Amino acid sequence: MPRYRITIEYDGTPFAGWQIQADVPTVQGTLTAAIASFSGESVTLQGAGRTDAGVHALEQVAHFDLSKDHDPGTVRDALNAHLRPHPIAVRDAARVGADFDARFSAVRRRYLYRIVNRRPDLALDRLRAVRVPRPLDTDAMHVAAQALIGKHDFTTFRSSDCQAKSPLRTLQRLDVTRNNDLVEVHAEARSFLHNQVRSMVGSLIWVGEGRWAATDLAAALAARDRAACGPVAPPEGLYLVGVDY
Amino acid sequence: MPRYRITIEYDGTPFAGWQIQADVPTVQGTLTAAIASFSGESVTLQGAGRTDAGVHALEQVAHFDLSKDHDPGTVRDALNAHLRPHPIAVRDAARVGADFDARFSAVRRRYLYRIVNRRPDLALDRLRAVRVPRPLDTDAMHVAAQALIGKHDFTTFRSSDCQAKSPLRTLQRLDVTRNNDLVEVHAEARSFLHNQVRSMVGSLIWVGEGRWAATDLAAALAARDRAACGPVAPPEGLYLVGVDY
Repeated sequence: MPRYRITIEYDGTPFAGWQIQADVPTVQGTLTAAIASFSGESVTLQGAGRTDAGVHALEQVAHFDLSKDHDPGTVRDALNAHLRPHPIAVRDAARVGADFDARFSAVRRRYLYRIVNRRPDLALDRLRAVRVPRPLDTDAMHVAAQALIGKHDFTTFRSSDCQAKSPLRTLQRLDVTRNNDLVEVHAEARSFLHNQVRSMVGSLIWVGEGRWAATDLAAALAARDRAACGPVAPPEGLYLVGVDY
Repeated sequence: MPRYRITIEYDGTPFAGWQIQADVPTVQGTLTAAIASFSGESVTLQGAGRTDAGVHALEQVAHFDLSKDHDPGTVRDALNAHLRPHPIAVRDAARVGADFDARFSAVRRRYLYRIVNRRPDLALDRLRAVRVPRPLDTDAMHVAAQALIGKHDFTTFRSSDCQAKSPLRTLQRLDVTRNNDLVEVHAEARSFLHNQVRSMVGSLIWVGEGRWAATDLAAALAARDRAACGPVAPPEGLYLVGVDY
């Protein structure tokens, strides 16, 4: 069976997350329905990352098998036609070998968290970023974040719902940058625990606000205790930027 | 009476434009209601530019008078509280002299038009940009645009509804830039005719698609005839970026 890899952009706002569920709109469910409408086939769509409700993607990656051979450009255009009016777009489609697995072949997932650091409410960036009214010391955030780089037990920064067998993960990048009011947190790892990025960002916001010193963040990691975590940052600031293979 | 100047960001999507009208939501009407809720006073709110339905603003400027003296920070915060949940934010408020007029004191209006030049539908940028699927030659667009710089009769690029007495305007900037898929058109002038930016952008898209040569754009201007204009680009790509005084 020919295997197809698709690269997908979506606005997470109207969806109860990536993972298909009965009776609620999901990205995986909406895409699976579009594939069925186009091909007449009921497929299992495997995504690289299961984003939560309200979380966005610039380049999520997924794969599925069809019995027929289609031109990849036709697959992309037909899926986009069937996806309307949902805010999901197939940016690219390609034929790949049977050994490609969107989830298990991935070597790096890249996330972005967008914060607008200002007192006035958001208008154009509403549901595309999170507002933090208190001034953030982004240099302090960046310095503190470096204590999380490397292989650690991330139990503190892991949802109690997380189903991964091990709390060990290797964080490759956690950078905090500022451009005027816009504060961006870039996180990269082979894989993340459930809610890990949002948990790390929520704690970093406490560092930026001066509630926590860098040593408090390192101590929270060392505690290996969910109760030691700061707040979990809201979903609408988070973007799955891309997946590397 | 103390005069206040406010700088306003808004998502134009849910509004029938800036200008107050009966029975439809408008930016001016929503702001006027918020000012009344805060102060108990019914004011005349004068904006720098009357944006059309669906057009956004990053920094629209307006002024109004109140009988009482308020701290500007209080005005900003109170208006933002009363504006919720509408996608309008007061970014700044200031006391100004009675000689300041948001409309007539303005010496430059700056607009941005955002185009995403790609075949797949928009997901995250929907209602924040306009998709053009055919490849755009942005260098050709930029070169052609320079023929519109300076003082001209812009009848060709003016809505038939335009109420300005003179079709003469002095265009100070019309730049076309590209960053990957994102094409931006920057337009600056002391003032614009109704639909002028969207009319120029629609014609520039024809240049970018190769339907028009640069000489066709110059000929359209010289025709001083609305019928010589290309299509009017949709409102959702347009942003009032700022106003200079």
